Amino acid sequence: MKFTKNSVGRNIPTELYGKKLVPFTGKGKGPYMERKTVIANRESSPDQTKIIKSLQEAIKKGQLTDGGTISFHHHFRNGDFLLNMVCHEVAKMGLKNISLVPSSIQSIHKEILPYIEKGIITNIHCGTSGPIADAISKGKMEGLLTIRSHGGRARSIEYGYVDIDIAFIGAPTSDKLGNINGVHGEYACGALGYAFPDAYYAKYVVAVTNNIVPYPNKPISISQNHVDAVVELDKPIGDPKGIVSSTLRVTRDPKGLKIARDCVEVIKASGLLKDGFSYQSGAGGTALAVTQFVHEYMKAKKIKGSFGMGGATEALIKILEDDIFESILDVQSFDIYAVKSLLNNPKHLEMGASQYANPFHKGGCAVNNLDTVILGGTEVDLNFNVNTSTESDGRIMHGMGGHQDTAEGAKLTIISVPLLRGRIPIIVDEVVSVNSPGENIDVVVTERGIAVNPNSKYYETLMKAKHLNIKTIEQLKNEAEKLVGGKPKEPKKTDRIVAIIEYRDGSVLDVIYQVKT
Amino acid sequence: MKFTKNSVGRNIPTELYGKKLVPFTGKGKGPYMERKTVIANRESSPDQTKIIKSLQEAIKKGQLTDGGTISFHHHFRNGDFLLNMVCHEVAKMGLKNISLVPSSIQSIHKEILPYIEKGIITNIHCGTSGPIADAISKGKMEGLLTIRSHGGRARSIEYGYVDIDIAFIGAPTSDKLGNINGVHGEYACGALGYAFPDAYYAKYVVAVTNNIVPYPNKPISISQNHVDAVVELDKPIGDPKGIVSSTLRVTRDPKGLKIARDCVEVIKASGLLKDGFSYQSGAGGTALAVTQFVHEYMKAKKIKGSFGMGGATEALIKILEDDIFESILDVQSFDIYAVKSLLNNPKHLEMGASQYANPFHKGGCAVNNLDTVILGGTEVDLNFNVNTSTESDGRIMHGMGGHQDTAEGAKLTIISVPLLRGRIPIIVDEVVSVNSPGENIDVVVTERGIAVNPNSKYYETLMKAKHLNIKTIEQLKNEAEKLVGGKPKEPKKTDRIVAIIEYRDGSVLDVIYQVKT
Repeated sequence: MKFTKNSVGRNIPTELYGKKLVPFTGKGKGPYMERKTVIANRESSPDQTKIIKSLQEAIKKGQLTDGGTISFHHHFRNGDFLLNMVCHEVAKMGLKNISLVPSSIQSIHKEILPYIEKGIITNIHCGTSGPIADAISKGKMEGLLTIRSHGGRARSIEYGYVDIDIAFIGAPTSDKLGNINGVHGEYACGALGYAFPDAYYAKYVVAVTNNIVPYPNKPISISQNHVDAVVELDKPIGDPKGIVSSTLRVTRDPKGLKIARDCVEVIKASGLLKDGFSYQSGAGGTALAVTQFVHEYMKAKKIKGSFGMGGATEALIKILEDDIFESILDVQSFDIYAVKSLLNNPKHLEMGASQYANPFHKGGCAVNNLDTVILGGTEVDLNFNVNTSTESDGRIMHGMGGHQDTAEGAKLTIISVPLLRGRIPIIVDEVVSVNSPGENIDVVVTERGIAVNPNSKYYETLMKAKHLNIKTIEQLKNEAEKLVGGKPKEPKKTDRIVAIIEYRDGSVLDVIYQVKT
Repeated sequence: MKFTKNSVGRNIPTELYGKKLVPFTGKGKGPYMERKTVIANRESSPDQTKIIKSLQEAIKKGQLTDGGTISFHHHFRNGDFLLNMVCHEVAKMGLKNISLVPSSIQSIHKEILPYIEKGIITNIHCGTSGPIADAISKGKMEGLLTIRSHGGRARSIEYGYVDIDIAFIGAPTSDKLGNINGVHGEYACGALGYAFPDAYYAKYVVAVTNNIVPYPNKPISISQNHVDAVVELDKPIGDPKGIVSSTLRVTRDPKGLKIARDCVEVIKASGLLKDGFSYQSGAGGTALAVTQFVHEYMKAKKIKGSFGMGGATEALIKILEDDIFESILDVQSFDIYAVKSLLNNPKHLEMGASQYANPFHKGGCAVNNLDTVILGGTEVDLNFNVNTSTESDGRIMHGMGGHQDTAEGAKLTIISVPLLRGRIPIIVDEVVSVNSPGENIDVVVTERGIAVNPNSKYYETLMKAKHLNIKTIEQLKNEAEKLVGGKPKEPKKTDRIVAIIEYRDGSVLDVIYQVKT
């Protein structure tokens, strides 16, 4: 196998499973601008019914064959039954060598493990966590796991690098003509944004629901024009408890609260936190605390922001409801509060994955308009590269969501991490795998100090902010190592590549090797 | 020239201007199911600005050449400045043989008359009224006027029978990335539904605005993903007084009120006016009265309807606001009340022209789900064929809106017309031109009686309703002729065809000849 070193210093094979790989050469330099697909025009006799009574019939109508590709969205999160149900049918039908293109794989999907081991499912395109990720780390899957960001996934579908035969869209509600939304009913999950590229570009699109509503469904998130069939099931398509949280909790951990306060201090010091401010954060406890502190500060200072974005949460929406933000852009709604807001507040807009983060989206995607994003990571290294996917022992544990996308798009990208997790240092010499290149990271905030990337355009400004506890990234690394008495152990790897991490433009940031067990 | 007779008895040339014509053979039998185009993927470097400072620059960027095609939408109605402005630029640039594809042409567009006479504009695809229609009737345009219904227009664009080089979309608001809507600002026109096919299928799409708003514009009616350029003008794009009416008036004419009441009696007698009722009507005085009476009746009887549709009007929306309808589907908003409702009421949904009325829309367009539609006409004949385009002297006076579409789609189609207009009989032996074939018409309601089409599936039911003043269509015709002392004069025509009337599926219903002057 021939290798070339990419611009984050990783050895990338020139070819893998017969496919040429393009090494990452820096943001904005990706080679993949040629579009090979078009938005599908779905022909049909207008009078033909779309209602189908079983998943098996849908799989047959979509003409899935050995070697085919099926896709899913993860707005049902760890309450999703659909991916498992479809894979059971695929297995029953004797199909093999199937590629899955979910927008995420979660613990609940462990039911498909036997199909991976038997060669029924041989390739997966997405970030994955839990038992499936663990199995792939251990070499249980025949083919490759391709880890993509949310924007990268949209790009790969729209530009024909992933060719979906059948897209399965779990639909909290659908009418008989296939107009669907996620904001009503027992299985309401809010925005359906990650499924938009699938609906537009897959060869065959199946909405799956157990909640047929009268025509016309409202709102229409995905229109009948993009749906070939509606499977009406008489059993649950998900577990409401796993779909949305009733309340996400702001951290109470003093370490997390200190990190959150320092994140806000960094944003303030950057000069960005003024009228017109736009912001994204996540749904973790520390991220929610940052959102809450940003809210309080903007309110106190009467700052009139622009938009908030992300996985939408109650904390974010409350900034909108206080008339501080003008709008919320929502690709995924994390809690019940967000679902209700999307339904009722015209300033809360659903958006598709491409509009959110596809690097080639016409006119620029939403992340390009962000002032600040707060992100996490499992490791950060001396080059500010961030790992989100692997543990320090080399096992795959997570996807990466919109990390790459927002990190590149936002003016100021802040990584908030604790210095240690348990006895494991988070700031390291070199990350086990690179998900987000250091050139996109401006600041790392830990409870023991703040490191500013010398290549950040905010470096001079932030270094002047004497009230910030600024240290070099090396200092933070050394402190972490001192606290636990040394560097983390090198992961033990075989020489078989089990996963690649694509950059959002389709070039390859890193490869992940099977772990030794 | 060879001719064949179509199924409404009209002689249709087999070929015209080098293009083969397919004669109409009955609803649902159209030949045009093959799609030749795809939704355009608009490539662009995400960082490239879309802002352009002049229409001329947009025309150049869109690479319009002699023989090219440009499109417009008519949501600014008789307050539209854009079509004129673009045509002035086209003329200045020395282009010729241009085809226009507006969704309608109104009196305000008379400024382009010299360009028609000089061969700068040689073909027009739409319904047209006022001075332009008159000029075409008199043979002043070199090429052909192709009159299409709203659904037929959408179909012709989506299926590649009309190939748009540049679509100009008048945008009451746009952000710099080209996200546009029609519900804000001085030029608010409400829904932008007729422009949706243009935005999806044209080779180059230009939003024209003098109202750039901060990103992200909200709501997003037409997304940045479908817009190539945003022309920011520093002058008005329309006349607000011509764009929306502050109030549309219910008729006070006793004749009109009688017709309206009888329309409601017919709907009641049909058995359709019960829970789940769906309904479309127009914005004329009599149509508004029908809507108001339907409202009163449903309220009194506690009938829970489904959806109201059409050009949205205050009268229609009030049924929604009384919780009698579940939703409004809106392709065009006629008054300020409708614009505000579209902005604020999540049960009031904007829809595109294809979703509204394209006969080949995936899963069936909205008109297929209508129980009842109330329509007008300039003439109705003994075969129940309806003319909406020509006067009895043969001159073109109107387009046809969604007449064909809703007449075919609705279960019960009612034509409400006075027996006479001035001294001209409206019920005639044979209409001057056929816009809507009689097979789609169930009932004609006049102030002197109601005629039921013997081919209607409601014929038996309605004939049993003894309280209705039912007459044959022949009786109505004879009464009209008796009142004015004879039949209307035959129009004086030359043998040059100046316009064709397409059926919504692309077959040809009728041709219109140049009038003798």
